[in-house]
Amino acid sequence: MYNKLKEECGIFGIYAKEKNENVAYYTYLGLSSLQHRGEESCGIAVNDGGMVSYHKDVGLVSDVFTQANLEKLPTGKMAVGHVRYSTTGSSKKENAQPIVLRYAKGNMVVVHNGNLINAVELRKELQQNGAIFNSTSDTEVIAYIIARERLKTNSIEEAVMNTMKYIKGAYSLLVMSSRKLVAVRDPQGFRPLCMGKVGDNFVFASESCALDIVGAKLDRDVKPGEVIVIDENGEMKSYDCQDNQKDGFCIFEYVYFSRPDSIVDGMSVHKFREEAGKYLAKQAPVEADFVAGVPDSGIDAALGYSKESKIPYDIAFVKSKYIGRTFIQATQDKRKKQVVLKLNPIKNTVSGKKIVLIDDSIVRGTTITRLIKILREAGAKEIHLRIASPAFIDVCYFGTDVAKKEALIAIGKTNEEIRQAIGADSLEYLSLENLRKIAKGSNIKNFCDGCFTGKYPIEVPKELEKESFEKIF
Amino acid sequence: MYNKLKEECGIFGIYAKEKNENVAYYTYLGLSSLQHRGEESCGIAVNDGGMVSYHKDVGLVSDVFTQANLEKLPTGKMAVGHVRYSTTGSSKKENAQPIVLRYAKGNMVVVHNGNLINAVELRKELQQNGAIFNSTSDTEVIAYIIARERLKTNSIEEAVMNTMKYIKGAYSLLVMSSRKLVAVRDPQGFRPLCMGKVGDNFVFASESCALDIVGAKLDRDVKPGEVIVIDENGEMKSYDCQDNQKDGFCIFEYVYFSRPDSIVDGMSVHKFREEAGKYLAKQAPVEADFVAGVPDSGIDAALGYSKESKIPYDIAFVKSKYIGRTFIQATQDKRKKQVVLKLNPIKNTVSGKKIVLIDDSIVRGTTITRLIKILREAGAKEIHLRIASPAFIDVCYFGTDVAKKEALIAIGKTNEEIRQAIGADSLEYLSLENLRKIAKGSNIKNFCDGCFTGKYPIEVPKELEKESFEKIF
Amino acid sequence: MYNKLKEECGIFGIYAKEKNENVAYYTYLGLSSLQHRGEESCGIAVNDGGMVSYHKDVGLVSDVFTQANLEKLPTGKMAVGHVRYSTTGSSKKENAQPIVLRYAKGNMVVVHNGNLINAVELRKELQQNGAIFNSTSDTEVIAYIIARERLKTNSIEEAVMNTMKYIKGAYSLLVMSSRKLVAVRDPQGFRPLCMGKVGDNFVFASESCALDIVGAKLDRDVKPGEVIVIDENGEMKSYDCQDNQKDGFCIFEYVYFSRPDSIVDGMSVHKFREEAGKYLAKQAPVEADFVAGVPDSGIDAALGYSKESKIPYDIAFVKSKYIGRTFIQATQDKRKKQVVLKLNPIKNTVSGKKIVLIDDSIVRGTTITRLIKILREAGAKEIHLRIASPAFIDVCYFGTDVAKKEALIAIGKTNEEIRQAIGADSLEYLSLENLRKIAKGSNIKNFCDGCFTGKYPIEVPKELEKESFEKIF
Amino acid sequence: MYNKLKEECGIFGIYAKEKNENVAYYTYLGLSSLQHRGEESCGIAVNDGGMVSYHKDVGLVSDVFTQANLEKLPTGKMAVGHVRYSTTGSSKKENAQPIVLRYAKGNMVVVHNGNLINAVELRKELQQNGAIFNSTSDTEVIAYIIARERLKTNSIEEAVMNTMKYIKGAYSLLVMSSRKLVAVRDPQGFRPLCMGKVGDNFVFASESCALDIVGAKLDRDVKPGEVIVIDENGEMKSYDCQDNQKDGFCIFEYVYFSRPDSIVDGMSVHKFREEAGKYLAKQAPVEADFVAGVPDSGIDAALGYSKESKIPYDIAFVKSKYIGRTFIQATQDKRKKQVVLKLNPIKNTVSGKKIVLIDDSIVRGTTITRLIKILREAGAKEIHLRIASPAFIDVCYFGTDVAKKEALIAIGKTNEEIRQAIGADSLEYLSLENLRKIAKGSNIKNFCDGCFTGKYPIEVPKELEKESFEKIF
Repeated sequence: MYNKLKEECGIFGIYAKEKNENVAYYTYLGLSSLQHRGEESCGIAVNDGGMVSYHKDVGLVSDVFTQANLEKLPTGKMAVGHVRYSTTGSSKKENAQPIVLRYAKGNMVVVHNGNLINAVELRKELQQNGAIFNSTSDTEVIAYIIARERLKTNSIEEAVMNTMKYIKGAYSLLVMSSRKLVAVRDPQGFRPLCMGKVGDNFVFASESCALDIVGAKLDRDVKPGEVIVIDENGEMKSYDCQDNQKDGFCIFEYVYFSRPDSIVDGMSVHKFREEAGKYLAKQAPVEADFVAGVPDSGIDAALGYSKESKIPYDIAFVKSKYIGRTFIQATQDKRKKQVVLKLNPIKNTVSGKKIVLIDDSIVRGTTITRLIKILREAGAKEIHLRIASPAFIDVCYFGTDVAKKEALIAIGKTNEEIRQAIGADSLEYLSLENLRKIAKGSNIKNFCDGCFTGKYPIEVPKELEKESFEKIF
Repeated sequence: MYNKLKEECGIFGIYAKEKNENVAYYTYLGLSSLQHRGEESCGIAVNDGGMVSYHKDVGLVSDVFTQANLEKLPTGKMAVGHVRYSTTGSSKKENAQPIVLRYAKGNMVVVHNGNLINAVELRKELQQNGAIFNSTSDTEVIAYIIARERLKTNSIEEAVMNTMKYIKGAYSLLVMSSRKLVAVRDPQGFRPLCMGKVGDNFVFASESCALDIVGAKLDRDVKPGEVIVIDENGEMKSYDCQDNQKDGFCIFEYVYFSRPDSIVDGMSVHKFREEAGKYLAKQAPVEADFVAGVPDSGIDAALGYSKESKIPYDIAFVKSKYIGRTFIQATQDKRKKQVVLKLNPIKNTVSGKKIVLIDDSIVRGTTITRLIKILREAGAKEIHLRIASPAFIDVCYFGTDVAKKEALIAIGKTNEEIRQAIGADSLEYLSLENLRKIAKGSNIKNFCDGCFTGKYPIEVPKELEKESFEKIF
Repeated sequence: MYNKLKEECGIFGIYAKEKNENVAYYTYLGLSSLQHRGEESCGIAVNDGGMVSYHKDVGLVSDVFTQANLEKLPTGKMAVGHVRYSTTGSSKKENAQPIVLRYAKGNMVVVHNGNLINAVELRKELQQNGAIFNSTSDTEVIAYIIARERLKTNSIEEAVMNTMKYIKGAYSLLVMSSRKLVAVRDPQGFRPLCMGKVGDNFVFASESCALDIVGAKLDRDVKPGEVIVIDENGEMKSYDCQDNQKDGFCIFEYVYFSRPDSIVDGMSVHKFREEAGKYLAKQAPVEADFVAGVPDSGIDAALGYSKESKIPYDIAFVKSKYIGRTFIQATQDKRKKQVVLKLNPIKNTVSGKKIVLIDDSIVRGTTITRLIKILREAGAKEIHLRIASPAFIDVCYFGTDVAKKEALIAIGKTNEEIRQAIGADSLEYLSLENLRKIAKGSNIKNFCDGCFTGKYPIEVPKELEKESFEKIF
Repeated sequence: MYNKLKEECGIFGIYAKEKNENVAYYTYLGLSSLQHRGEESCGIAVNDGGMVSYHKDVGLVSDVFTQANLEKLPTGKMAVGHVRYSTTGSSKKENAQPIVLRYAKGNMVVVHNGNLINAVELRKELQQNGAIFNSTSDTEVIAYIIARERLKTNSIEEAVMNTMKYIKGAYSLLVMSSRKLVAVRDPQGFRPLCMGKVGDNFVFASESCALDIVGAKLDRDVKPGEVIVIDENGEMKSYDCQDNQKDGFCIFEYVYFSRPDSIVDGMSVHKFREEAGKYLAKQAPVEADFVAGVPDSGIDAALGYSKESKIPYDIAFVKSKYIGRTFIQATQDKRKKQVVLKLNPIKNTVSGKKIVLIDDSIVRGTTITRLIKILREAGAKEIHLRIASPAFIDVCYFGTDVAKKEALIAIGKTNEEIRQAIGADSLEYLSLENLRKIAKGSNIKNFCDGCFTGKYPIEVPKELEKESFEKIF
């Protein structure tokens, strides 16, 4: 049923200059804007003078945080929040974040976007020393190590920096101690994390769209390998722990994950996608009556394609906002077995036309195949599919849900074979070269594009697959 | 909070050739596609060999029809469904439709889209003869009269045709008797109603997008004043009861109410709006960097404006699909008091640009004022507002929720005064003349454009206002 | 699954001297005390200066009236409430009461405990004159006739009195007009209805336990055939409409339906049952170690049996308060198929003992058979079953749910055959003669004991059965 | 609002000889019977071939385990379940049990009834070694130590036995490893724990009433200091770890906590209470018309008093089963401010009578004061209160919720002062001497009666109070 790659998580944190701020509501707003990064579970923890209160559960932000639930959270000086899809760890309630724990130095709260590639061995080692785990999430592994390191050091930030020596992989973290808020991005900076200010308050978020909704101004991104601490006096300090490692930001954040109204590592996501459309128009031109994007992910690139090619942009599909998570797909009826889609074609726009159809990427290919069929039934004469990224050919170990190569339509197929499978009249992917050219607009200099190349910025253990990981427990 | 005019209702019905069809699920699908026509309450009634089962409640289709609730409805030969906003009658549960009743001839089920203008006097007259009413809805008045007329005639269709002599105003109806399904459109045809077929099954719906989702092919629209009967043998008969009255289809259905993927009275709604944008470009040209539409209602016209003017189309706002009905607006916090909107600007698209911003209409003007302010904060240099319909200057008596003139921003203001109130650099409405030109593409020949002109196709009782209506009970 | 006869309904009403009283909360309290009379649906209607607000739904009072729902009801001068099991009419939501309607003279609200025996013919007659029905409940028939009669008369009380000439059967009614509250009991007084006062406020309720909970003092019972009106000035008037008909109060109200802490028609229900136990001890003595009652319905009579026989009273069963409506009975498991009961024996009380076990009545016999088996498994030596009423041998047409003779264990069986079927060592029913002797303590002089005798106080149409009734619609 | 002492927890476990048994449903049944021991949260964990699935949440068993939730749990060989009130640890969701964890040796599940008195120091010590805690419950402390000890030993049972050397206080535990089920009772045996068999399956439960409901036969109690293991072959082994310590079973289990149909440590709870009533009759005789118990806790002793004194037993109060957790107490109304009670007097039983009223104990005294007032209003002439246990004068450290002396009505008051405060005509408590005589019927030889004496079977740290405990975190 899922046809789109899923991002794993979004995180949000706020540190208020004054006491008794409604930090929970700000976090609620931020999570609402980051919901696309994780629809499975969510949570908010508030730190009110060292006392931590929290609520987390399975469900969308709007389900989990009813007015009543939100009002149960106190005011305070700090809060962090999290939205989540499962990557490692199952989808059970106990894996919802924030992780709130009590250890020798008091309370600690951790939220995490990313995925460790050495979580299994770290967990084993901790267990050999008596650790017990309440969840299957690698975030609990991180929390354990921070707690352990905190016993050997004098501050939470030192503990966090020590921890970075042990953990490998993708992690954008917010760590809230009794009095400080620490923001961390792994040395590659796989996942985004930005910082803004609203008045004297500091705000951290996975994407800048979450700053917008709380009225904060984007200051800058947390840099790969950077540790930022807001201390008990509201003073900010920064530590560079990249330690000669190279950047490796996930280029797929620009391609699909992030919201178009976000500015990520200095580049507008909408702009990136529009550029992708423009390059695609140059790289793979075609004669057509109009260009259309698959809502919502292909719209920005479709506009770029149209601008570059001068072929008019038009709307091929209307998206129903009412066909959502609770929509009932037929199981009882013999005649209406096909999955009902959110998209309905505008017949008289489509009928008799040659169409350039743009999407951001193809993962499994199921939906795009169906959409092309629907366009043909609506009378489309030709359908030329253009994809605003290269062919997706390998799994991701750094915080998304592509764990099995077999599910990928592009594996072992030529472009022509994919085209036939999908039923398009022509098919072109954006070249890797062009993708990399566009990415030069970012502050980041090196990217992880392993899903397109099979090559990752850091070495991945051979045996690492989601399935095997699960079985260890 | 509501800034958009609300349509009152959507209706759907199906008559299956075979017994034991899953007519409830088809109706569920249809209502999902008509949800934009009424988000307040909904219901489905199934006729299984003369036995009627139904479920209706306050809420969206996806709330009211959980899997469990939907499965409680039996299979059958016929079903009708309804989605609703309140126009007359309060929003209480007892006004949800379908109206299911028992009378001398057995069961009858009625669903109604529209509003009678002589409901009060009809109700009084019925009450003087001993009638009691369970709801404040004018649909119950219609049902009473059909029941009364049925006692004097030999068939449900004759009863319905007799009823048309008494009731005045807007009504697209589906009437389900024990064995027949009757579709009716008032002589003016104020509200849409179309007919399609899927296999040998007949489907009726307020808009053709609801035919699409069940896989039905649009056959034609029920004509103003037409009564269509599908009898116990699945045979269709049509009766013309327009009786020398003139068409008066609501032009605002094209402007805003209907979904762009619907074809209403022979004209594509998307096409209508695109044309409105084109005419607007000719009528009110302006120099600008790009054209953008207010999502979702201004998008189609913005494309038209762009095509005609050759000014590029772009996206100014991203719409959050997660900020919905249950979103919690701050009440507790001193610093974040402003209503959070679903729309966030794409800053680097907007910044430093001259923008033509298109919306379909302005009713109260609150949201557009806020959006213009947001664009300016995002750095827009000039904002030229173009509205794809004339100024909204009078109330509607025929099935929408504009009941008080005072709420309308255009009342008693010059164009310049409205512009200043809204904060745009320039403002133009589509002229009535141009709107009428576009409407020539429809099968309908005369329209109700009373909201723009104050002149209605049939005479409206002077004292008729929603408020006074309510007070009678 | 149901082994006990179910009462059909309970009603409650309050008229406050002052405006703006929290009449909804008083009604909520009253309905909580009458819940045993109807667990299926409930509702409250408040009259606030002629404006009626109401809420009703399927479910227990505590489910339907959450704090939020209750607080939505306004304060006012009058309110009526209802709890319901279905007798005629299905269990659907539309049959929940109060029935709130608008007619020529304004609003009217009706709540009804009882069952008409001529509802079908009345309904047909009304339908022939154009009436339409929203429910299958006979209460809507009553409401129609009151509305019709009100058009011919000068007051609601006259309309009610006229209505009594048409309707036949059991009805304890509360009718709330814009300004008056009318309480009515049918000429036989089949169902109870009492009146109390708290301060200057009048309270009506099916049982006096509902007066207790609102702090009202029991004044007296509404008499069979009496109409009591509280008018717009808070003055009470009484009209005798018994019209030479004989009393026919349901003796089973004393045997089982009413709560032991209620005083009904001048007699304590607890006392009645204790007396039944005493008579039973004299009528059917037996040697035993102790007397126990089946909780909760047999406890009062067991105490009486013990007092009279001098055999000690003890507890044989503990009743779990947590095994309720939502308890999950096994469906999946091969080894634990038997229905789990709320009752668990106290083994070391029971083991090796001769027991007199008392219950109020036997309807189908399923549960008592199971309980006797459980006692034997717990080591009981002898079990002598004594029933504090005569054998139940005929259906009820006056407001309870016994509609089919076939379900009754006593039909066509000798006492010995019943004993064997149930598995008791001996079995005795209280004689009809003794039952009648006890009832002499009541203010009522004649009773309906048709369930024990097959003879009813008024003639019952031959063809009248619940099933046939349903099929007419 | 709460006037009764609350037990802290109930536990249940089952080990099935065969695979794929519906152990979750058995556990559901057991928890339903133990619900009185903890109404706050509950949970069930199933072990299916080493894989653990569980569900736990805040709420009653019937709320948390809907049909859907229960069916999500798989079949398996073992399951444990828990019902809970908070004693240490707040009432938050994260303190719900079972505690399910992963450690070096795989999975472990723990359920716990009791309270450690050295949890704080154990927790500190564990934290100094790097432990992090997800809850404030002392059960997590126990789990940590078992996990730690398991690394040093060869089996789960050895680990558990080692753990017993560290933990002090009350603990009845069930520990489920991948292949074994271990039952433990602390050396004093503060809390009950019994063992039964149904077929070849072993069942453990806090009380024997939970064996009854699953059809299991009570075998025997787990002895104070005993460890019982059911190994991977379904073989049972027992280890005595009482280690010369003395029994110290909570005598209040007999007085109030346990259900009357349970047999606890060889003695019927009903019998114990009846005996208490008999001794009370001898110790504190009075002339009266009848004896009544406060439902439900005083009923058994009232019967005993009646038997011994020959004063007839009668019912003074009817208890409403519908006034439960969701009952809405008035907050809005000026006239009906008093808390509505579940108990309503039977007026004509009470009026003009001298009554011996029996309750099991008095903690705060609020409810009994109100009940005596209600009886007087109902006309009672004299009310002689007899309490079936000694005066409650000190707090409990071993698993109940009495943490503050100030709340206890008997603190610093003479018997006469208490009588006056409560408003009874006379008041007598059962003497400690008599209570101890009755307890001789149990298999246990020494008891904890610290709540009556201030002396506890093991030394309690001076500083230990619930409040201070909470503040440490």
